[in-house]
Amino acid sequence: MKKTITLLLILVVHYVQAQYTDSVTIRKIYDEALSNGKSYEWLRHLTKKIGPRLSGSAGAQKAVDWTKQLMEQQGFDRVYLQDVMVPHWVRGAKEEAYILNGKKKTVVPIAALGGSVATPPKGIGAGVIEVKSFAELRAMSPDKVKGKIVFFNRPMDPTKINTFEAYAGAVEQRANGATEAARLGAVGAIIRSMTNVHDDYPHVGGMRYATGVPLIPTAAISTNGADLLSKTLAENPNATFFFKQNCETLPDAKSYNVVGEIRGSEKPDEIIVVGGHLDSWDLAEGAHDDGAGCVQSIEVLRILKALGIKPKRTIRAVMFMNEENGLKGGIQYADVAKKNNEKHIAAVESDNGGFTPRGFGIVGTPEQRAKVIPWKPLLAPYGLHEIGPGSGGADIGPLAQLGTVLFGFKPDSQRYFDYHHTMVDTFETVSQRELELGGASMAALVYLLDKNGL
Amino acid sequence: MKKTITLLLILVVHYVQAQYTDSVTIRKIYDEALSNGKSYEWLRHLTKKIGPRLSGSAGAQKAVDWTKQLMEQQGFDRVYLQDVMVPHWVRGAKEEAYILNGKKKTVVPIAALGGSVATPPKGIGAGVIEVKSFAELRAMSPDKVKGKIVFFNRPMDPTKINTFEAYAGAVEQRANGATEAARLGAVGAIIRSMTNVHDDYPHVGGMRYATGVPLIPTAAISTNGADLLSKTLAENPNATFFFKQNCETLPDAKSYNVVGEIRGSEKPDEIIVVGGHLDSWDLAEGAHDDGAGCVQSIEVLRILKALGIKPKRTIRAVMFMNEENGLKGGIQYADVAKKNNEKHIAAVESDNGGFTPRGFGIVGTPEQRAKVIPWKPLLAPYGLHEIGPGSGGADIGPLAQLGTVLFGFKPDSQRYFDYHHTMVDTFETVSQRELELGGASMAALVYLLDKNGL
Repeated sequence: MKKTITLLLILVVHYVQAQYTDSVTIRKIYDEALSNGKSYEWLRHLTKKIGPRLSGSAGAQKAVDWTKQLMEQQGFDRVYLQDVMVPHWVRGAKEEAYILNGKKKTVVPIAALGGSVATPPKGIGAGVIEVKSFAELRAMSPDKVKGKIVFFNRPMDPTKINTFEAYAGAVEQRANGATEAARLGAVGAIIRSMTNVHDDYPHVGGMRYATGVPLIPTAAISTNGADLLSKTLAENPNATFFFKQNCETLPDAKSYNVVGEIRGSEKPDEIIVVGGHLDSWDLAEGAHDDGAGCVQSIEVLRILKALGIKPKRTIRAVMFMNEENGLKGGIQYADVAKKNNEKHIAAVESDNGGFTPRGFGIVGTPEQRAKVIPWKPLLAPYGLHEIGPGSGGADIGPLAQLGTVLFGFKPDSQRYFDYHHTMVDTFETVSQRELELGGASMAALVYLLDKNGL
Repeated sequence: MKKTITLLLILVVHYVQAQYTDSVTIRKIYDEALSNGKSYEWLRHLTKKIGPRLSGSAGAQKAVDWTKQLMEQQGFDRVYLQDVMVPHWVRGAKEEAYILNGKKKTVVPIAALGGSVATPPKGIGAGVIEVKSFAELRAMSPDKVKGKIVFFNRPMDPTKINTFEAYAGAVEQRANGATEAARLGAVGAIIRSMTNVHDDYPHVGGMRYATGVPLIPTAAISTNGADLLSKTLAENPNATFFFKQNCETLPDAKSYNVVGEIRGSEKPDEIIVVGGHLDSWDLAEGAHDDGAGCVQSIEVLRILKALGIKPKRTIRAVMFMNEENGLKGGIQYADVAKKNNEKHIAAVESDNGGFTPRGFGIVGTPEQRAKVIPWKPLLAPYGLHEIGPGSGGADIGPLAQLGTVLFGFKPDSQRYFDYHHTMVDTFETVSQRELELGGASMAALVYLLDKNGL
């Protein structure tokens, strides 16, 4: 009995000491990020000097070259490119669109969705069928839809506290609206922008065509434009819509994931990934989506080095290519990892914006999640309260099949869709402190993952 | 035994049912705020149509008239003004300031601190003593300081996670710097702006003179200006500083707290206050500070009415006057409450900006705080995780002497001091969703306070 108590006491003391050491280290991580952080200036360069970087574009290649050079300058143990073939879609000339209500012509802001085909060179003008759901559309007679433009106008649900849930509830319109409309003979599909705000920017994003269905052009319309179109149709169901776009899909292009690593001192074969995606939409500087995630990931490794923390396991910062319209980088990274029999114990992604930290979503078994729970008191002082089952991240998703536990960094979601996939996703909308706190939060998690395993 | 178990079961069922009812009501509160919220448009009017509203100004009077009218339009049971005499300080003509380094003259942005005296009409030019702390200044020989301008240049500590802590650690320079400098014979005091960002806006705020010490003029300098001045002095300790300001303190002016209430259906004599302050600095639209708190407070009562919730206790929205430079409104409100033997069981203040909700700070006894703990699971789904001992709010502070439990609404603090007391504290920096979530959070707390008492 006495022995058991002694043993128990030793264990408790050990646990308390470990927590104390960890809390001191985590405090140092945040101090470093907030006092000497580099992520903000890196983001300035990526957004202001490089700018838009859609897969296959010159901007994407510049971003590859620059992040590689940046990680080399940081003195990481290894920096390399990983080849990946990516879709190469180009917007072409700026789109045109207007509502024709009797003789009144009102120009509205639209932008072709990524992957869409062009309209004929003279554009498309047609009557409009407004729907709020696929069910509503599917219930219609093809006669009614044929030759028309289908206008998908279901807003994101404002009552969802986490805006990503509202996005998930509306984004099928953007992804599959053209296919649903084409099935009934429509000649085009116009999609209400995925945002809770009333603005004049089309919020673009990817779409896909189902096989065997005519490829009809599709574009996002700004929410103010959508409201106007809806109001106009309510007043005059015979109002028409015109749009013209010149986008096209070129042959796949060669591009790269950019990888930098600090080699593990004890278990170099066990890998922890921290990443974001390097590509952005062509209209966007891609500050929150996902320049923030890229610079935060590099910052994680910089912080570890700056504090002299020598990780036991190998820590890799990965800038994935092509999250926006293909996910080829994420798929390729996991394929290579599998082929090389690499053991990825955990992957952390930041792709929800450079906002103030709230927590981490975890994709793993209940046992794996249970190992993380004791860390919660260490992270709570930094505003990280929401740590539990959730989503990881699109790019790290393919690693799940390798048994990797996925962590999605969860910043506050309220403003994300104000900027998402628009020309206003700019550097100026990022708060330096919020960005730095995000990087520090990821570094703290990586530190704990490395120290304790999973 | 059987009886005890039955009784226990009944209690548990009752508790679970109550929690369920509460969770449904709270969900409705958030739905109402996010679907039909009015606070954002109210804030637009208050900031864009009325604008700056320093105590004693025409803007302040307009804000009094408008919020009274607004609450009357909402059909609250009683809306009234409460007289209060307030300090009346005016800035006068725009300040001028420059650094003189040899023959090089560099203009820098300054703004007189509220309560400061003017410089002589021709301004003051003098050598500069830069210090980081009062201790450093006090250790100096008066000979060194006499006739000089003291430059207080201690930045806010960037490593504080909550920026209000960093503010608290630096703001004595602004509040008491002039007095400390005057004690050693200085002719002026220039204070580094209270912000973590590097910007070109002087962040103003209140200051006070100790009795028996010469009144010397004092102003805030932008952080970029402060950095430049510091760098210049490091290169050339003989560089001088010139500033000219024309502010003055006029006789106290008559103003008002604006009060609207819903009368309690069961215990009308028990009062719950929810409030913010109506005055702002003269250079600022006062969107975050504290237009947000005002419109959120009115929104709390509007939400209760819209949902048909008839509070047991009397719920009062109070727009306090003069938080910024005197706190006369808060003091007057508590004085009147005391005189009238009013029983204020709780007071909730929002004066930390219209940012995404994080929780509530509580000022009360451990027993009172313990009553709030069971509500935490009801509020956690809305991002309110930080509920515990903390600060209430300046305006409701004087109610503490009446035994009122104080709650300070705690939004995320990261961006607050980017805008605080400057011309960039504008409507455009407020996120509609963040503002609405704040109002809903306050309404949820008020609902629980009313239902359960304290």
